[in-house]
Amino acid sequence: MLNLSFSVRRRRPRIGPHTAPGSEPGTVVAHPEALPPTMRVIACGPEELVERRIDDPRAIADYLDKWPLTWVNVEGLGDASVIRAIGELLGLHALALEDVANANQRPKLEEYPDNVFIIARMPQMHEGTFGTEQLALFLGRNFVVTFQERPGDCFEPVRKRLRETPRLRFLQPDYLAYALLDAIIDSYFPVLESVGERLDRIEEEIVRDLKRESVSRIFHTKHELLSLRRAIWPARDILNALVRDPIPLISDSTRTYLRDCYDHAVRIIDLLESYREINAGLMELYQSTVGHRMNEIMKVLTIIATIFIPLGFIAGLYGMNFDTESSPWNMPELGLYWGYPAALLLMGAVAFGMLYYFRRKRWIR
Amino acid sequence: MLNLSFSVRRRRPRIGPHTAPGSEPGTVVAHPEALPPTMRVIACGPEELVERRIDDPRAIADYLDKWPLTWVNVEGLGDASVIRAIGELLGLHALALEDVANANQRPKLEEYPDNVFIIARMPQMHEGTFGTEQLALFLGRNFVVTFQERPGDCFEPVRKRLRETPRLRFLQPDYLAYALLDAIIDSYFPVLESVGERLDRIEEEIVRDLKRESVSRIFHTKHELLSLRRAIWPARDILNALVRDPIPLISDSTRTYLRDCYDHAVRIIDLLESYREINAGLMELYQSTVGHRMNEIMKVLTIIATIFIPLGFIAGLYGMNFDTESSPWNMPELGLYWGYPAALLLMGAVAFGMLYYFRRKRWIR
Amino acid sequence: MLNLSFSVRRRRPRIGPHTAPGSEPGTVVAHPEALPPTMRVIACGPEELVERRIDDPRAIADYLDKWPLTWVNVEGLGDASVIRAIGELLGLHALALEDVANANQRPKLEEYPDNVFIIARMPQMHEGTFGTEQLALFLGRNFVVTFQERPGDCFEPVRKRLRETPRLRFLQPDYLAYALLDAIIDSYFPVLESVGERLDRIEEEIVRDLKRESVSRIFHTKHELLSLRRAIWPARDILNALVRDPIPLISDSTRTYLRDCYDHAVRIIDLLESYREINAGLMELYQSTVGHRMNEIMKVLTIIATIFIPLGFIAGLYGMNFDTESSPWNMPELGLYWGYPAALLLMGAVAFGMLYYFRRKRWIR
Amino acid sequence: MLNLSFSVRRRRPRIGPHTAPGSEPGTVVAHPEALPPTMRVIACGPEELVERRIDDPRAIADYLDKWPLTWVNVEGLGDASVIRAIGELLGLHALALEDVANANQRPKLEEYPDNVFIIARMPQMHEGTFGTEQLALFLGRNFVVTFQERPGDCFEPVRKRLRETPRLRFLQPDYLAYALLDAIIDSYFPVLESVGERLDRIEEEIVRDLKRESVSRIFHTKHELLSLRRAIWPARDILNALVRDPIPLISDSTRTYLRDCYDHAVRIIDLLESYREINAGLMELYQSTVGHRMNEIMKVLTIIATIFIPLGFIAGLYGMNFDTESSPWNMPELGLYWGYPAALLLMGAVAFGMLYYFRRKRWIR
Amino acid sequence: MLNLSFSVRRRRPRIGPHTAPGSEPGTVVAHPEALPPTMRVIACGPEELVERRIDDPRAIADYLDKWPLTWVNVEGLGDASVIRAIGELLGLHALALEDVANANQRPKLEEYPDNVFIIARMPQMHEGTFGTEQLALFLGRNFVVTFQERPGDCFEPVRKRLRETPRLRFLQPDYLAYALLDAIIDSYFPVLESVGERLDRIEEEIVRDLKRESVSRIFHTKHELLSLRRAIWPARDILNALVRDPIPLISDSTRTYLRDCYDHAVRIIDLLESYREINAGLMELYQSTVGHRMNEIMKVLTIIATIFIPLGFIAGLYGMNFDTESSPWNMPELGLYWGYPAALLLMGAVAFGMLYYFRRKRWIR
Repeated sequence: MLNLSFSVRRRRPRIGPHTAPGSEPGTVVAHPEALPPTMRVIACGPEELVERRIDDPRAIADYLDKWPLTWVNVEGLGDASVIRAIGELLGLHALALEDVANANQRPKLEEYPDNVFIIARMPQMHEGTFGTEQLALFLGRNFVVTFQERPGDCFEPVRKRLRETPRLRFLQPDYLAYALLDAIIDSYFPVLESVGERLDRIEEEIVRDLKRESVSRIFHTKHELLSLRRAIWPARDILNALVRDPIPLISDSTRTYLRDCYDHAVRIIDLLESYREINAGLMELYQSTVGHRMNEIMKVLTIIATIFIPLGFIAGLYGMNFDTESSPWNMPELGLYWGYPAALLLMGAVAFGMLYYFRRKRWIR
Repeated sequence: MLNLSFSVRRRRPRIGPHTAPGSEPGTVVAHPEALPPTMRVIACGPEELVERRIDDPRAIADYLDKWPLTWVNVEGLGDASVIRAIGELLGLHALALEDVANANQRPKLEEYPDNVFIIARMPQMHEGTFGTEQLALFLGRNFVVTFQERPGDCFEPVRKRLRETPRLRFLQPDYLAYALLDAIIDSYFPVLESVGERLDRIEEEIVRDLKRESVSRIFHTKHELLSLRRAIWPARDILNALVRDPIPLISDSTRTYLRDCYDHAVRIIDLLESYREINAGLMELYQSTVGHRMNEIMKVLTIIATIFIPLGFIAGLYGMNFDTESSPWNMPELGLYWGYPAALLLMGAVAFGMLYYFRRKRWIR
Repeated sequence: MLNLSFSVRRRRPRIGPHTAPGSEPGTVVAHPEALPPTMRVIACGPEELVERRIDDPRAIADYLDKWPLTWVNVEGLGDASVIRAIGELLGLHALALEDVANANQRPKLEEYPDNVFIIARMPQMHEGTFGTEQLALFLGRNFVVTFQERPGDCFEPVRKRLRETPRLRFLQPDYLAYALLDAIIDSYFPVLESVGERLDRIEEEIVRDLKRESVSRIFHTKHELLSLRRAIWPARDILNALVRDPIPLISDSTRTYLRDCYDHAVRIIDLLESYREINAGLMELYQSTVGHRMNEIMKVLTIIATIFIPLGFIAGLYGMNFDTESSPWNMPELGLYWGYPAALLLMGAVAFGMLYYFRRKRWIR
Repeated sequence: MLNLSFSVRRRRPRIGPHTAPGSEPGTVVAHPEALPPTMRVIACGPEELVERRIDDPRAIADYLDKWPLTWVNVEGLGDASVIRAIGELLGLHALALEDVANANQRPKLEEYPDNVFIIARMPQMHEGTFGTEQLALFLGRNFVVTFQERPGDCFEPVRKRLRETPRLRFLQPDYLAYALLDAIIDSYFPVLESVGERLDRIEEEIVRDLKRESVSRIFHTKHELLSLRRAIWPARDILNALVRDPIPLISDSTRTYLRDCYDHAVRIIDLLESYREINAGLMELYQSTVGHRMNEIMKVLTIIATIFIPLGFIAGLYGMNFDTESSPWNMPELGLYWGYPAALLLMGAVAFGMLYYFRRKRWIR
Repeated sequence: MLNLSFSVRRRRPRIGPHTAPGSEPGTVVAHPEALPPTMRVIACGPEELVERRIDDPRAIADYLDKWPLTWVNVEGLGDASVIRAIGELLGLHALALEDVANANQRPKLEEYPDNVFIIARMPQMHEGTFGTEQLALFLGRNFVVTFQERPGDCFEPVRKRLRETPRLRFLQPDYLAYALLDAIIDSYFPVLESVGERLDRIEEEIVRDLKRESVSRIFHTKHELLSLRRAIWPARDILNALVRDPIPLISDSTRTYLRDCYDHAVRIIDLLESYREINAGLMELYQSTVGHRMNEIMKVLTIIATIFIPLGFIAGLYGMNFDTESSPWNMPELGLYWGYPAALLLMGAVAFGMLYYFRRKRWIR
């Protein structure tokens, strides 16, 4: 059975910054509906690893001093003071922090003297609809800081690998940053697979039932593919820049891995563009199928009507009440011996003539 | 409730210069319908700030001498002599002044030895329709001059920040120019949000009511998106040039801010192009829905007609007046004991046969 | 009132050269239908200006010797010997002269050692249809020569400015060439304005009357926009080359003006591309409106037919002539006391049932 | 009268090489259906010219020794040994010879140490269909060799110019190569003119008669424009490379001519792309016209049906046989004095009501 | 006869890697449904050639020591240990091996210090559907290793040429790699030819029968052309890089051959894009033909209905039972001497009037 019951549409997201146009650049203001932040620190060295939930951003300073690598993961952007505090502690640029708080940024890469600021978008599947969630990542000499809009991410396998020994490669923060970006990019594949399956189901639905809802589904899929596209195209540019630009914080060994990640992004774009074309093709399929169905309906109507309307006329003709007695010209057929059978024969001839005509026109097979 | 009552169309704007083709370049002629100009000067130093309305352009000279930063804002382009006077005073190029007076310029950036000339377009929402208004901006060593077509702008937050202390950053005219451009770019976001909402409403309208007006709405939205597009694409190029080109009047610290502004312009373009695609998708949605609706209408007609036309024929048949007395072959059915019930049965059988056929064809569920 | 009576189509223009394929390059052959040439010379110095009509191309030599600037304007390309004579006198390349005579060239710029050869296309409005006319321009050290296909051009304001004193700027031939190109580019604006008005009128026509002619009008507008496009895109490239390429005959001061002219060309292209999209949108508007109109028509038919066909059947039923006397089962209704009113009631019930159904389906409001 | 009787479709051409995939590169195999070759030599010096038909490729060696310029033209690719013999004699690369024999190459330019290898495609008009034929050209120090698929070409004017004295320019083989390429490019113009005329005729056909065949014609024109496009776009690239790349065998004076030829190629591409758009527009014109025609048909049906079905119902009503004698409620109208005229009046009122309704809906004018 | 019975759709292939997102890069995991591998070694020197099936990857080491060229062909990717063993033996990068095992890679080229890693996709025809199969190729100093998903390839002619003497050219591994890539590229031609034939058959089907299945066929062809496109476009880029980039393992003589192979890839892309356009054109052809067919159907219905419905009304009129005796105004026509013939005449006049009207409208020819 086909089951396509996804919710009609999630709430329209804000597209602009929630700070007023013209306000001071670098102002970090939390969105009123953003979730309160929870902070988790993973700090590790060659031998050990600690994993803590912290409440006060100032606690991060201790980890930075003691451990070669500190990863701070913030989930929820509801408290501007937390973002500002982390920013101050790590020397992050005010403009970058403003972008962290405005969670509808386009993916981008910005190089600052002491750190690299990356915005990526994680694909989200929720009750059959697709969207993206912002991930802001700062890469410094000995830390990685990530800001997510909501709890729940695709980083669990990375954490698991981090906890396993040996974790030598992970002692470079750029490798951790790569691993996170790679996890994000690879999480587009299952989303695209769902899209592909949905496209197949819509096709089946059109061919089998031709439901009106299919058009809305195609339209919403278009919507969602556009939003995935807005997220993945600039991500490819970021990865390309990370591979090619001379960014000091990225080591050459990590670049090889980033190249692999870039290849995946290109593959996702290839598939996405194919799906966009296939989705557009579904609309044509729908319209053509509607047109064909219409033809079938009209053929049935036309065949029935063109056969029976003339017959009905003949019947009506001999249902007239002209007075046969006032004149020999008034419907003498009614009094003929073979009148009725002749009328029936005439009707039969008309019907068969019509049927023959439709057969020759290939309307009836 | 849906409320889509926006005015049908504002008056078609002139698209060419109002000076005759082939006339002297650099001729500043006011458009006959342009509003009379009002001038406001904001002049400030590290400690103080004055804000005046002036009537004579020559008064500007005093401010330029006394203050480190002077911002002259002219609203209304109806008096060519004012534009010329300001131009002479500040050493602006005649071709640039001509463009100021012809308020349908494409956004552009022109470097002159002593100043930078920028044309941008501010988005305008007016009774549900979207348009753009020209903003001409001259950036000099110690001044910024802006020319607007009409009173009313998106610069109020900038003025507010200017009035607050400390205003150190504002003492550089390039930072003020950035702040103004940033305010313009950010004011595209609410406009796009309105467009997005309108697209949602049109979708709802199509799915629910399938009104003919939806097509006109889609068409006008196309119109408006095209005009926003003509305004924002070149704006992106200007911002890119301001960030990358070696313009002496732009300091490096301001460039960082301009890069942020450039990112916003790119995001607006992303959204705009998505909306253009979604708008095109609405047209397809409309056409497919019309096609489907047509199918439904035709199915009802066909079902009713193909059931009742044959029945009507049978009724007509036994309504014929062949004289049963003149021949035993003339409609003997009429005299049969079970004639009428048999006819009714035949009719019922035809009707049920048809219904079964339509059911098998999935026309009836 | 709408008035869209433009002529159906001008004669299909030749698209290739009228010299046979494979013939000697540089062969100047006049088109058999080209008009006979008339030549006008404007020669001027700082103080004086003479303006003459000449018949013999050799007369040009005198002007070249005596005056700092000579402008020869040839209208009509019907005499190859005239073109050849001017070419010889001024040392113009044979390939360029061949292009002058073949008046369907694409705009282009060719640099020769002693002169610059430019082909541009002037927009033409004729009885509501748009086309372009070739203008060939040679710019030399002390002369400008222009060849037009037909009398009548957009250069009158340039001539007027030339006649006025001081005309210092005009003593440089490159400034004159700029002024002519500028006049051509600016003359696209009124043409585009007409196109814009026509698009508005077609829209109105579709929304109001849905005439079949609208489709042809949209199709022809597409045709004409394509031909304008073929003329203006390469013109932009020419202007760009004139601004950026190191052409010795173009002075730096003129380049500033040419940059302005280039901006206008870009603006025209922006508008043209918008109009092409709007024109394509009109076709969709038409098709959607046709589809909607069809729905309306079919609804009326379906409502009337599905109400009256069943009623007609009931009427036909009781119009059957079964012999009520030969059996109590033969149409006993006919003899009932309340037979007729009951039948009428049944009919009314069917009709109201149908109307209720249509109302619930929102076919009737 | 319209006459569009062109043949339905020529045989589908092979698109790949006729040698098996994976076979030895540089294997020259003649296509089994290729015509047997005929060879013609034109050899010339400043004073004399000889023109011979030869049968043995080895005879070419003599001409090469004696004459400054030798042009060998081979028509028919049916004999691989001939191609191989010429290749050996002139030192042509095996890969190039393989391409000569596979006559469905894409136009290309290959530089070898001693010669330049060019593939171009000559447009072909045959009974109203358009196609292209491969021309392979080798340009060496003192020779030009051309291979054509079939006898018959567009080179006759070149041969004529070659036979005339003085032929100085032709003594350079690169000028001859230019002249041949120029003849090929220019022979696209008449083909495009035919296409343009066909597009006009299809338009007329649609507007006048709306025949079903028009769709097939549009579809085949699309086919043919695509095949012309595949031939002319790479030809432009070749010409561009010949003009700009430092190829030693091409002299500077010839480059000037090639630039002219390049301009023509660009113009052809411009026209081709316009025609492709116009052809696509014809499909829309067809669909819109079909939609409009449908509306007209349905209007007629709806007007007739909605007027007469209610009238028919009224007539049917009073055709019922309720027994007026068994009850005063049974159709008392039948016995009224003004019964029949009243019924007629009712019918007339219904008919006029309907007509008024259709008039107000603008269905009737 | 048309025979288009290809299977509806093969199983949807996985599009992402089968390793979980975020897992360790360079992890080689076999797909659970992948076939078990079989290995074949061809090792050759100038004089001799051996061809063996091997079971243990370690056996390869012997061949590498003894022979100048070793080609290992692995069919089936079902055993990760085999892939890892070969990788270790030959020093292949872990990321490359991961891509080998994930058989849905995009074609790509990666240079490693000691070898070149190429992914290409071989076209597959299976019961009328087209797909591609991954081929991974490693080119080293003295070896070529190829990994295929399934047994069966297009390399048989290459093997045959390898077995023949002299095989000097083949002693360079880069030439062997070229030969394999060339065989892959050339195997696209028969696939495209099949596509071309299918497009022709679909066209015929539409024009002749207008079956509903044609739409699905067009849609699936779109699908398949997209998947071929995703395979061939990046293949072109790889070939371009092999020709132009300074890769030490590729010799100059092989580059000449690769250039030829690149030309073929470009030709395939040209054809593919043409087919995509033609396929899109088929959809338009279908829709237009459906529209035209609809017009024909509606014309028949309208002609029959508009002729007979008025006639039926007249017949119904004189079938009314108004009592002629109760009033002289009640249907006096019924008692007239010429009543019935006059009614018939009236009917004939109406019918002919309608026919004349339809003829004038060109609905009947």
